[in-house]
Amino acid sequence: MRAVDIIAKKRDGLTLTHDEIEFFVQGFTRGDITDYQAAAWAMAVYLRGMTSEETTALTLAMAHSGATLDLSSVAPRVLDKHSSGGVGDKTTIVVAPLIAALGLPVGKMSGRGLGFSGGTLDKLEAIPGFHSDLSQKEFLAQLQAHGIVVSGQTHDLAPADGKLYALRDVTATVSCLPLIASSIMSKKIAAGAHIIVLDVKVGRGAFMKTERDAAALAELMVQIGHGVGRQVGAVISDMNQPLGNAVGNALEVVEAIETLKGRGPRDFVEHCIEVGIQLLLVARAATDEQHARAKLETALASGRALEKFSEWIQAQGGDPRVVDDYTIMPRAQVIRDVLAPRDGFIAGIDAEEVGLTVVGLGGGRAKKGAPIDYSVGVVLRHKIGARVRRGDAVLTLYANDQSSFDAAEKRLLAAIEFSDDPPALPPLIHKVIR
Amino acid sequence: MRAVDIIAKKRDGLTLTHDEIEFFVQGFTRGDITDYQAAAWAMAVYLRGMTSEETTALTLAMAHSGATLDLSSVAPRVLDKHSSGGVGDKTTIVVAPLIAALGLPVGKMSGRGLGFSGGTLDKLEAIPGFHSDLSQKEFLAQLQAHGIVVSGQTHDLAPADGKLYALRDVTATVSCLPLIASSIMSKKIAAGAHIIVLDVKVGRGAFMKTERDAAALAELMVQIGHGVGRQVGAVISDMNQPLGNAVGNALEVVEAIETLKGRGPRDFVEHCIEVGIQLLLVARAATDEQHARAKLETALASGRALEKFSEWIQAQGGDPRVVDDYTIMPRAQVIRDVLAPRDGFIAGIDAEEVGLTVVGLGGGRAKKGAPIDYSVGVVLRHKIGARVRRGDAVLTLYANDQSSFDAAEKRLLAAIEFSDDPPALPPLIHKVIR
Repeated sequence: MRAVDIIAKKRDGLTLTHDEIEFFVQGFTRGDITDYQAAAWAMAVYLRGMTSEETTALTLAMAHSGATLDLSSVAPRVLDKHSSGGVGDKTTIVVAPLIAALGLPVGKMSGRGLGFSGGTLDKLEAIPGFHSDLSQKEFLAQLQAHGIVVSGQTHDLAPADGKLYALRDVTATVSCLPLIASSIMSKKIAAGAHIIVLDVKVGRGAFMKTERDAAALAELMVQIGHGVGRQVGAVISDMNQPLGNAVGNALEVVEAIETLKGRGPRDFVEHCIEVGIQLLLVARAATDEQHARAKLETALASGRALEKFSEWIQAQGGDPRVVDDYTIMPRAQVIRDVLAPRDGFIAGIDAEEVGLTVVGLGGGRAKKGAPIDYSVGVVLRHKIGARVRRGDAVLTLYANDQSSFDAAEKRLLAAIEFSDDPPALPPLIHKVIR
Repeated sequence: MRAVDIIAKKRDGLTLTHDEIEFFVQGFTRGDITDYQAAAWAMAVYLRGMTSEETTALTLAMAHSGATLDLSSVAPRVLDKHSSGGVGDKTTIVVAPLIAALGLPVGKMSGRGLGFSGGTLDKLEAIPGFHSDLSQKEFLAQLQAHGIVVSGQTHDLAPADGKLYALRDVTATVSCLPLIASSIMSKKIAAGAHIIVLDVKVGRGAFMKTERDAAALAELMVQIGHGVGRQVGAVISDMNQPLGNAVGNALEVVEAIETLKGRGPRDFVEHCIEVGIQLLLVARAATDEQHARAKLETALASGRALEKFSEWIQAQGGDPRVVDDYTIMPRAQVIRDVLAPRDGFIAGIDAEEVGLTVVGLGGGRAKKGAPIDYSVGVVLRHKIGARVRRGDAVLTLYANDQSSFDAAEKRLLAAIEFSDDPPALPPLIHKVIR
């Protein structure tokens, strides 16, 4: 078998065999197949596509390109949720303890934020002392002891995906369904969870801009999961405006804790419940939606979810006082409301632009490995559909100096669309796929 | 401007601007744009194509990626012919002195053989003493003094093409019209000839397998040439069977000299005359085809072309005695006829397979830089359409040991197709494009 023949076959629109895909991924991981051959191949895949069988084979080959975690030694079924990335998405911080409080173990490897989309690990690290660079041994031990663990992905999991992703980023081959799906799923499979719910975002603040694309991605990932013997479900959720009110690391942790206390923003609470329902249903831990919802709402109302959160944070070295005292977290210097420039309805809040504004304040990474200012961000006072009067506070802006505050204020006001008539409200969940 | 955006634009099927193409080629030549980015871009070009304007811009950018030769200092119009590569193609060895004998300067940079297709330089180097690694200064001086020079391409001409070609070879992006056309034409343009005739081969022993593909390539190259102010014509010539009778370096030189003596094989003589006619017409050195043909036939019959050949070989260090004494050239040890296994007509001689058999004997390169055995090869005794009887010699095989002789004999007999009925004869020239 030769790499060049495999590239030519895909170039000509033919279907690669399981063996050819495995040969290519293994050769690429070892370095026998060069970056330029992988780049040409990725472009051929981009333009010619892959069948779901090919995508499954690619996923498995990448998942097995390095170490894989066997969670079955800890529990017969470990749960994981994965978000395709959005703005204000602190769902894991609520849903992980909520599910764990119901006695279902949650073991998740999470990512860092890049570009307009924040990362769960960055948010959690806003809590003093919290650390997420667990070894495999620590990961397994915490899952065993507490039934909940969220850590960074170790380098030896799915190294082929890491190498290929770096290449795709500079060769214009990122936005390709089979490559996106296999990238996400190879990491999930290597990380060992048995039950996975994918939260695929759609809209102007998501990588997938249309419901059709998001559904195609979700369906493909569910298919892959089934193909490799995992139980997988997906929700397509809206990301036209930020999720919840808070965008920014420390601010989102506060909003997550408030949600665990039963005081979260309506849209975010409902989103967490919806993701939780899917987890329970996929795990067959509830008979139907009503049953699942009741279990989740009880765990929230009873304070058990908040207790589990506290236990989890402490297990990973975080200061548990954060639950009662938000002031122990990094706090911005310049905190002021931004006012509505006119009367009217809020008709749009460009989530991507809000995300980029927070990155601009220092709250995210424009470049891999850059440091993060946990304190900065935005708390929306109103969301799409709200009626405001000129001079009302539309949001509170958290910055660390006046000039970046001013720049962010200007940018945010431009990102908010006002209308004279009540706008159509975006749905929270577009679709559920199982 | 960013490389990744240029790749994305071509990926999406859009037309690149002149500036974008120049930016990409310059960056790639300097190494700022990586091999993997160029590989992804080449695959996007392969699958999305290029307009002739884009291809012209690419050709110019590659031609100007290094030094360019200015032949105008030697003569206002220097001629060049280029073959797309075939089996038994010793046309340059005849046509260059034939044209030079008519007072038209021929300055050509030629290539080495690779794969089934031989290279003119390798053939010429079968002549003891002949050397083809001339400096630019030597190239110009010989063109000035003798009106004829054929040398290897110097490394500083069109370096972008050299780099890109090496990459295409291992990324399945070779067989792509705009990339083939720009590769050939960038070298031709950098080498400085004003008048260029392209001999595009078509058939089972050529890179272009169909007349349509060959004509598309030829038309594109003629268009590019016109776009950059060169006078260009093309012939589409047949390569279903080998050209002439001899295949193999020393054997082809002998056949070329025999042709210059007026004793060449009918098909090869006619092919040389046709290419010569196009050179004279494109150079406006003849009023029409009949006029051109008469001039060429006179130069051959008078011995002037042979004299010019002798002068040329001597100028490049070759032993001029070769004209009268073929025994000074490398001679194979095992020379024997291969006999027809049956009565019938010769209906096909697979040129690619004949070429590969000669490579197998040591007469060509399976790998770049490999040494060559000049002595080995094949001389066909009959071509397509001939009637033979079982036991007649169909070809003479030149090998250097019995086992490679035996392997080659078996392979060649399988490459020759016999029929009971007279076959259709392939045309010599399929089409002329100007």
